[in-house]
Amino acid sequence: MEKESKDRHDYKPLNQRATVLPSYFNQIASSSPLKKLVYQGKRSQRCCTTIQATTLPVSKEAKTQPTSGANHTSNEASQTKRVMVIGGDGYCGLLPSTYPKRVMKLQFLVRRLFDQQLGLDSLTPISSIHNHIRRWKSLTGKTIQLHIGDVCDFEFLSKTFKSFEPDAVIHFGEQRSAPYSMIDRSRAVFTQNNNVIGTLNVLFAIKEFSDQCHLVKLGTMGEYGTPNIDIEEGFITITHNGRTDTLPYPKQASSFYHLSKVHDSNNIAFTCKAWGIRATDLNQGVVYGVRTDETAMHEELYNRFDYDGVFGTALNRFCVQAAVGHPLTVYGKGGQTRGYLDIRDTVQCVELAIANPAERGEFRVFNQFTEQFSVNELATLVTKAGEKLGLEVQTKSVPNPRVEAEEHYYNAKHTKLVELGLKPQLLSDSLLDSLLNFTIEFKDRVGTKQIMPSVSWGKIGAKPKTVAA
Amino acid sequence: MEKESKDRHDYKPLNQRATVLPSYFNQIASSSPLKKLVYQGKRSQRCCTTIQATTLPVSKEAKTQPTSGANHTSNEASQTKRVMVIGGDGYCGLLPSTYPKRVMKLQFLVRRLFDQQLGLDSLTPISSIHNHIRRWKSLTGKTIQLHIGDVCDFEFLSKTFKSFEPDAVIHFGEQRSAPYSMIDRSRAVFTQNNNVIGTLNVLFAIKEFSDQCHLVKLGTMGEYGTPNIDIEEGFITITHNGRTDTLPYPKQASSFYHLSKVHDSNNIAFTCKAWGIRATDLNQGVVYGVRTDETAMHEELYNRFDYDGVFGTALNRFCVQAAVGHPLTVYGKGGQTRGYLDIRDTVQCVELAIANPAERGEFRVFNQFTEQFSVNELATLVTKAGEKLGLEVQTKSVPNPRVEAEEHYYNAKHTKLVELGLKPQLLSDSLLDSLLNFTIEFKDRVGTKQIMPSVSWGKIGAKPKTVAA
Repeated sequence: MEKESKDRHDYKPLNQRATVLPSYFNQIASSSPLKKLVYQGKRSQRCCTTIQATTLPVSKEAKTQPTSGANHTSNEASQTKRVMVIGGDGYCGLLPSTYPKRVMKLQFLVRRLFDQQLGLDSLTPISSIHNHIRRWKSLTGKTIQLHIGDVCDFEFLSKTFKSFEPDAVIHFGEQRSAPYSMIDRSRAVFTQNNNVIGTLNVLFAIKEFSDQCHLVKLGTMGEYGTPNIDIEEGFITITHNGRTDTLPYPKQASSFYHLSKVHDSNNIAFTCKAWGIRATDLNQGVVYGVRTDETAMHEELYNRFDYDGVFGTALNRFCVQAAVGHPLTVYGKGGQTRGYLDIRDTVQCVELAIANPAERGEFRVFNQFTEQFSVNELATLVTKAGEKLGLEVQTKSVPNPRVEAEEHYYNAKHTKLVELGLKPQLLSDSLLDSLLNFTIEFKDRVGTKQIMPSVSWGKIGAKPKTVAA
Repeated sequence: MEKESKDRHDYKPLNQRATVLPSYFNQIASSSPLKKLVYQGKRSQRCCTTIQATTLPVSKEAKTQPTSGANHTSNEASQTKRVMVIGGDGYCGLLPSTYPKRVMKLQFLVRRLFDQQLGLDSLTPISSIHNHIRRWKSLTGKTIQLHIGDVCDFEFLSKTFKSFEPDAVIHFGEQRSAPYSMIDRSRAVFTQNNNVIGTLNVLFAIKEFSDQCHLVKLGTMGEYGTPNIDIEEGFITITHNGRTDTLPYPKQASSFYHLSKVHDSNNIAFTCKAWGIRATDLNQGVVYGVRTDETAMHEELYNRFDYDGVFGTALNRFCVQAAVGHPLTVYGKGGQTRGYLDIRDTVQCVELAIANPAERGEFRVFNQFTEQFSVNELATLVTKAGEKLGLEVQTKSVPNPRVEAEEHYYNAKHTKLVELGLKPQLLSDSLLDSLLNFTIEFKDRVGTKQIMPSVSWGKIGAKPKTVAA
């Protein structure tokens, strides 16, 4: 099975590969009970708004749909698993190709509110989640159920669990920016409360309503910090004073956001042990890129692309800076090394986790990245790629707003997903060219005032802070 | 100085020692600025109720006051430090002798509400916090400021910080029962929200209003779980693949309560690094005993004594069971081994932590216990002590309501507080005799239905649960 998986995941760069929908879902579904039905009925709604995605009469786009996607799955309707996606409107959660036929998305859409409040915007124009889902339906024939509500509201969450009975829950529904969590006290508190209590609620919902359900939870490589020893995948075997045990890998998170993920990991691990929850913690590295085959099908399927000082991440931001002639802003010495991955690998990894669920009671941790880079290395790569496109790219060191080591050892393991069949799409010249061209295409939408770091780890205060546009 | 400390802490068993107020406060205060004044004025209160403790006209009790306590400190009024005690109405927080002259207590008193809601009561009759403070004033001349409010309410907390400007904050103000956190979803969520956000607020208040303030935070030995290697004090040096680093000791907490303490530790460690907070995390073992010299002064100063299945802890509960002729309830095999300490050592340890504050930016962890026992060993000790008093003590194994190893390796280090001067008061026959006699004295107040475990780790559900009396 592993070999087969690898063959089917022979992705090509960017938007040129043939879209092959993962075969895992068939393999699993064949051994799953088929008794469940997609919930389609009406019901009373007090705490949430349910929007049934409807097909728009858009015939033109249907021609542009990839050869495989919808066709492949048309006969699998009754076999595919039920996947609930929490936070299905974000950078990673929006990607529709990740999921099989029966998908329910839970959304609170607060991220869109944050953009409004902070005066930020995605480089790419993103459509409403409603239009996104309608367009997806019109292009692929696939229905995605959408429920608008807050996972911190257990009444809302339990209703969706009871009606949908998911086989897997992909939990992206957290506040995911370290700088956002360091703006002021209320955002720090919001981040930890929202993330920790939301995840607690998901765990209780699984225990209460779908105890065989597999939780796939987005963690972060940032949970580990930068220890002076190799980073393992979730656990480390320690010999100490002549005795040996395998224990949770020590965590050294460095923002209230990263800490919230550590708290989640600890809570989830406990419920696996105490209740037999099956869980996979995806400690994801820094994601770059934006396009997948599916998002490229129509502009209403575009993924978001953050480049600002709050939600933007290193490589994406560098590409935007290069595109608009802004110096690449390296924080401090630039020796900060992290794991990175292509957003199409995020899709693969989530697929692989769902297709190979954890055992009952198993708390499984995958380090989800494919390559390590220092910030300086990324800046050099973008500079070279920019030169090829005739861009004059400069680099500027700016005071590091974070509290982190700027020169350090870093060697993190990331073999478990490869063992499951991940075929990494490494950062290549052609990918960087494409990414740069993509940012150039949208450079008129860049707000250069968003680029610089606006949040300082040391200056966070108790008073509510407005981040001026 | 260390030797001096040891001499001054030559405690005698139970209530027979001379009460010597710690001299640490003088030593520190002499190098502290004396510019600060105790806040005594009136102020507008929207979010909290402030009660200035007043002296009751109780002349009789004044004669019973210990020879040293108030006298020793009468000349030190202007020298002692300002100590804010959060959660100063609980088993550990109530003990007044811990603190020097200028004390502010923040209380929300929810623990008393929990007792009402769950139909539980302390073995000892406990007076209201108001009467406790008035009585303390009348007996010792010492004023304790009392503010009623919730540390999760930052407006309340910040007002108290601004007015009092504490040099040290002792943070006992958390939901502290593992079974309570495992009753139902809402209590699990309450526990993590209350503990984590409350501590975040305290950290922000220190950063914003008293950045030199030393945080002394009550953690728990339960954060470590029961690893198969020696437990160190907060950190462990790991050699892995030829490289070495000292990292946070891996945590394996086994209830939502214990997890909340792990979350706190991680949050505090980060703020020490990012903001220069000075913090001491007291990973306390299981406390036994009830009397200190001070609580014995008057019945209105009695400390609480929990023996029920929710808040009671092993040794205290065994003594109550022996007193009323109830079999000692050993959970499962009884091989569960933990660190224990006398409540008078809790007082000592907190004193020592305050007297020897952490450095700026230091996150210091002390394992606060003095001896290890398995549950079976405690049962044997209580059985023997009971026999001496003519009690027929039986032991019964009951199904373990918790998820924990019942036979395991356990060897936890606890040298740092000893190095600071702790003179442990080990569990002795005479102490057990006293404790048993104490429980016999109050045995008419025992509600035997409270004794058995009523909360199961595996059966916790999403629905609100009422624990019947």
